[in-house]
Amino acid sequence: MKKTVLLMQCPDKPGIVARLSEFIFRHGANIISSDQHSTDPQGGRFFMRIVFALDETAVPLKAFEADWRATAEDLEAEYSIHFLEQRMRMGILVSKYDHCLADLLYRVRAGDLNCEVPMVISNHENARDMVERYGVPFHHVPVTKETKLEAERSILEWVRESTDFLVLARYMQIISDGFLGAYGKDIINIHHSFLPSFKGANPYRQAYDRGVKVIGATAHYATAELDEGPIIEQEVERVYYKDSVADLMRKGATLERITLANAIRAHTEHRIIRHGRKTIVFQ
Amino acid sequence: MKKTVLLMQCPDKPGIVARLSEFIFRHGANIISSDQHSTDPQGGRFFMRIVFALDETAVPLKAFEADWRATAEDLEAEYSIHFLEQRMRMGILVSKYDHCLADLLYRVRAGDLNCEVPMVISNHENARDMVERYGVPFHHVPVTKETKLEAERSILEWVRESTDFLVLARYMQIISDGFLGAYGKDIINIHHSFLPSFKGANPYRQAYDRGVKVIGATAHYATAELDEGPIIEQEVERVYYKDSVADLMRKGATLERITLANAIRAHTEHRIIRHGRKTIVFQ
Amino acid sequence: MKKTVLLMQCPDKPGIVARLSEFIFRHGANIISSDQHSTDPQGGRFFMRIVFALDETAVPLKAFEADWRATAEDLEAEYSIHFLEQRMRMGILVSKYDHCLADLLYRVRAGDLNCEVPMVISNHENARDMVERYGVPFHHVPVTKETKLEAERSILEWVRESTDFLVLARYMQIISDGFLGAYGKDIINIHHSFLPSFKGANPYRQAYDRGVKVIGATAHYATAELDEGPIIEQEVERVYYKDSVADLMRKGATLERITLANAIRAHTEHRIIRHGRKTIVFQ
Amino acid sequence: MKKTVLLMQCPDKPGIVARLSEFIFRHGANIISSDQHSTDPQGGRFFMRIVFALDETAVPLKAFEADWRATAEDLEAEYSIHFLEQRMRMGILVSKYDHCLADLLYRVRAGDLNCEVPMVISNHENARDMVERYGVPFHHVPVTKETKLEAERSILEWVRESTDFLVLARYMQIISDGFLGAYGKDIINIHHSFLPSFKGANPYRQAYDRGVKVIGATAHYATAELDEGPIIEQEVERVYYKDSVADLMRKGATLERITLANAIRAHTEHRIIRHGRKTIVFQ
Repeated sequence: MKKTVLLMQCPDKPGIVARLSEFIFRHGANIISSDQHSTDPQGGRFFMRIVFALDETAVPLKAFEADWRATAEDLEAEYSIHFLEQRMRMGILVSKYDHCLADLLYRVRAGDLNCEVPMVISNHENARDMVERYGVPFHHVPVTKETKLEAERSILEWVRESTDFLVLARYMQIISDGFLGAYGKDIINIHHSFLPSFKGANPYRQAYDRGVKVIGATAHYATAELDEGPIIEQEVERVYYKDSVADLMRKGATLERITLANAIRAHTEHRIIRHGRKTIVFQ
Repeated sequence: MKKTVLLMQCPDKPGIVARLSEFIFRHGANIISSDQHSTDPQGGRFFMRIVFALDETAVPLKAFEADWRATAEDLEAEYSIHFLEQRMRMGILVSKYDHCLADLLYRVRAGDLNCEVPMVISNHENARDMVERYGVPFHHVPVTKETKLEAERSILEWVRESTDFLVLARYMQIISDGFLGAYGKDIINIHHSFLPSFKGANPYRQAYDRGVKVIGATAHYATAELDEGPIIEQEVERVYYKDSVADLMRKGATLERITLANAIRAHTEHRIIRHGRKTIVFQ
Repeated sequence: MKKTVLLMQCPDKPGIVARLSEFIFRHGANIISSDQHSTDPQGGRFFMRIVFALDETAVPLKAFEADWRATAEDLEAEYSIHFLEQRMRMGILVSKYDHCLADLLYRVRAGDLNCEVPMVISNHENARDMVERYGVPFHHVPVTKETKLEAERSILEWVRESTDFLVLARYMQIISDGFLGAYGKDIINIHHSFLPSFKGANPYRQAYDRGVKVIGATAHYATAELDEGPIIEQEVERVYYKDSVADLMRKGATLERITLANAIRAHTEHRIIRHGRKTIVFQ
Repeated sequence: MKKTVLLMQCPDKPGIVARLSEFIFRHGANIISSDQHSTDPQGGRFFMRIVFALDETAVPLKAFEADWRATAEDLEAEYSIHFLEQRMRMGILVSKYDHCLADLLYRVRAGDLNCEVPMVISNHENARDMVERYGVPFHHVPVTKETKLEAERSILEWVRESTDFLVLARYMQIISDGFLGAYGKDIINIHHSFLPSFKGANPYRQAYDRGVKVIGATAHYATAELDEGPIIEQEVERVYYKDSVADLMRKGATLERITLANAIRAHTEHRIIRHGRKTIVFQ
């Protein structure tokens, strides 16, 4: 029995749920959980996540998928199929601030996140020690204005085959469109503000100067447009007049850790469907 | 087309979702949304809320219900069927503190809650003015130790036929088991603490004396055991060393309003399934 | 004995607290509470709020103020003096959405806010009934593009003498610079987003389209630049993929009520010092 | 110049602030920040935290303290004096769950907490590796029913001289009254529930069974009565019907980390005054 996740979206119309659940039942699989959402039952878009236990001895995955493909085409559905217990391979890019990195490495080792870390890449050397102590390979890829493209090529070589998705855990280099295209898989970024407020550099300083009473952190999928990708998760915390920029950074660092870890948990549990510049995150 | 809600629970086993969605599809109804939960796919309990649009001209509700009854029996299911657009009749009981009452009357009039208020009953006179301004009948039923049973009989006469559920919006009298049994429908209470902390009288004073850093409010179904009924909703807020008992009461009053309104919204949208001393509250 | 509040700010330097507390002690007043903040002990700005009980029979306020003026000049201090028990007069402007108005009227009557409401002004008639039931005068001042200046003149006449500050409780007209200048006292606005995100029109629609996971409301002092004034208070709440724009509006309406009430509480308790585009809000 | 903290409490009466600030000014020290609280200006208790820069070349600490002692006696004050920049020595006790430990070690190394860790003591071996990687001595002190007293004696020898306070970072052994008395300094415990709810064993299971909608974590000073000591900090998070006991444990683990870190930050910055079973935590 293999816990299998089907993520799909298609134009909404009557009978989709019945058809899907009947399809799964007919293939001898038992639905463990099911979530759905429709932007509008009349002419809206339909999103669904079904987790089911597939008995591969009775119905091989190949056969299941072939059958499903026909149904999906008929529904004009986009979809993906995942095995819940297969751990995703998460490549981590980081710069000097290593609090998110430390948190992720601990959580992965503790089994708190359903993934493994084939490597950490940084444009600085300072995290090498910590990373290697966790038994994870560390690659130092320095970046200057002149070597940026070359650096991205090196990174791409490291990650293209050996990772299922990337996490920018406070990686302070802007990823080029070329890299996004060439990598072709999901990249999750943590931005240290409550987007869309305070895009770009020094968001805590921006927040301090604007005098907001609540700060936040945002995990989102990286896209070609900086800090504009689909938001996965946001966390916030109250600040006070006594808080300096350094206090905001310290409070924010905790928010960043939680926000990024929650986003990665949702991603690796295949609970997210991307739709344009938004996400559906099933709980 | 009538938006219809089916709430059900039964022992979990393979194929339930397929069977239900097929059942609904076969009766010409379109599933608008569907939520399910299982405590354990092997031998656990299964909970489901389905909202569907029923075409009564094609399939009369009677026929639908008769068919469904057979299916439900086969699944050993407890269930209830509701029309989403039919507003529930909410009777309100209140004592001196009228902040929850004021909030509920405003929300009902603003269409923010899917219900109407056939009457407000109080053991004090002070809220009469406000209630009558909203065009809602107000009944004064004073209570003393000696007249408690008689008072409950009066209340029961007022509410038994004309309400679908009751709300104790800071009603400071303990409801007897006899009343609970005789009324026989749901009663929602707001308790001014984060249960199970600080049951009984003066919870804000108790919270102050214990020195907690966060206070809360709890909406729950009333049961024979005081402050022990199934919790529907809880809200919390941070307190500071500067906060006096009066400050806690003031902050708490806002929590009580929100918590009670959210609980009533869930109840009147038929999003709650009671199970023992717990609730499943679908979102 | 009169509970008196001194709010002040000045360049920071050694000995200010000693000098102030000694000053108050020497005038026979007892400090009840005291809060201070310095952006930087070296060359920063110093902010202080002192509450003290002044015995006017021993030291008349005139004499106290005259003495204080000399000290303040010496410290290059800006300051204001208030009697805590004197209720401020709050004028309310509102348009069609009346949820904040309803909340404020209830809170004022319940004694939850230290102010009175000499009048409510609206460019619509719909709130008249509710306002008059509270015994508060209601003035209808319709606004069109053509009559905007004239309307502001009417409003100014109503509020200039009879109010200590104004609240824009979802007043959907932009206040002109001319009005701000002519009124010359504080104006508190509630904006239905987590500023600086989603300035301007339809912030809930903007938030929905951007796919944020948390929404907010912001109370700030109105200034010539729209939605850019010093922020007083912000509240936030989590949203889900199931939430429609209407759901955001409903959730947001509760946030707006709380945020605005908290901001007004701070303002009427003289706990706010404005400094450039920021506020110090003492707790 | 030495940043010095004076924490004090005494019966409230007129003139205390004036006297204290004048005292500090007279000794050539500059007040950097000052917080105070009174439970009641008439006959209540007064609490104060003053941070000031002391010029030891002009006024030696000994002289300052001798002068202060006389003043304190006159005010019937309890007090303590600390140097803000002197890092406290925090001994950590831990059992199998090491998420708080990992968080604390990272934060201490990152300079996020104003303390150092002379040692970690555990009744299990599993954390040794992580602790030693941080260059911190690790002592394994196994505990059985029979060896409990002996184990406490060993621990006491390790910590009595070399630590300023202890942290029970999920140390699952009950500390005896004898140990508390013999150690004689502060001990901070993290309890994995929102106290006073769910004292004792398995609080997440208790919370699950009761069906609460919000869970919490509580950091408090350990006292002779289990889970009854003065609360320092509490954090909470919403839970859903889908959350299993394991989910509560996972969510709670994050709460525990934050709550404990915040409590330790307040303690090591000398922002806490204990008073009976409550704490004043200045911000």
